[in-house]
Amino acid sequence: MRRQRPIIATLAILAAGAGIAAIAAAAVKPETAIAYRQAGYTMLGWNFGPMAQMVRGKAPWDATEFALRAERVAQIAPQLLEGFPPGSDTGATTDAKPEIWKNMDDFKAKMNDLVEQSKRLAEVAKSGDEAKMKEQFKQTAAACKACHDKYRSEE
Amino acid sequence: MRRQRPIIATLAILAAGAGIAAIAAAAVKPETAIAYRQAGYTMLGWNFGPMAQMVRGKAPWDATEFALRAERVAQIAPQLLEGFPPGSDTGATTDAKPEIWKNMDDFKAKMNDLVEQSKRLAEVAKSGDEAKMKEQFKQTAAACKACHDKYRSEE
Repeated sequence: MRRQRPIIATLAILAAGAGIAAIAAAAVKPETAIAYRQAGYTMLGWNFGPMAQMVRGKAPWDATEFALRAERVAQIAPQLLEGFPPGSDTGATTDAKPEIWKNMDDFKAKMNDLVEQSKRLAEVAKSGDEAKMKEQFKQTAAACKACHDKYRSEE
Repeated sequence: MRRQRPIIATLAILAAGAGIAAIAAAAVKPETAIAYRQAGYTMLGWNFGPMAQMVRGKAPWDATEFALRAERVAQIAPQLLEGFPPGSDTGATTDAKPEIWKNMDDFKAKMNDLVEQSKRLAEVAKSGDEAKMKEQFKQTAAACKACHDKYRSEE
């Protein structure tokens, strides 16, 4: 089979928009999607935690580890959206509010903001500039919070 | 704080060896490490599944999606090892055999083989060459199986 355009270009298009979610939406059980997205957030948290500790001064500053964690967050963030296919709003174990599927465009916008902020974080972290890394970390954390405040159940 | 060598070079060194595991091993509860590594395998499986379906002819061949999945597997694979810090061999919910921690060098070698094979898969997938992609997929799957056979409990 011949490709119709370079795969990398297509990947970039997919990663930039909602295309990724469409790929995985077919024939996925809600519980499978829920487990997947929760896995994504678990991996995000594992990498976000040590950065937060450093930013808050609760762990020694380590620019190398920070950059590694930032790169991983930037890799995982674009993988989250496809964990929210239509129909995966039900499930006793999910903290995702039904409002996500009622406001999917807004949810995608917030998710894309996380993707963008975490991408910037990984870029800034390559510089090793502590002040800039800390500032961009806060921007990234704010992107997390903006979505959690509206779309994650705290019950 | 000034860096002593370029961060990217350091990251490459870390990613290539056991350094990553050392970073996260400090002060991590066993259950947290277990949840993290299980999340990693969940994300691997989510991306591996659609590729396997294509390779087995159970889903239409889609070189673009294959390449996206391959890239994600290549990103996640290097993140697994740090989910096996010392002391995380206990836990009712883990399928990881205690043999891992008794043979850590062999386990790391098998994990590094997965990292290498999945990296090759992502590279090959950029070419869009169906036959080569399928062949390298099998090599990657074999790397998974080699570790599972020895170190994952099937009970």
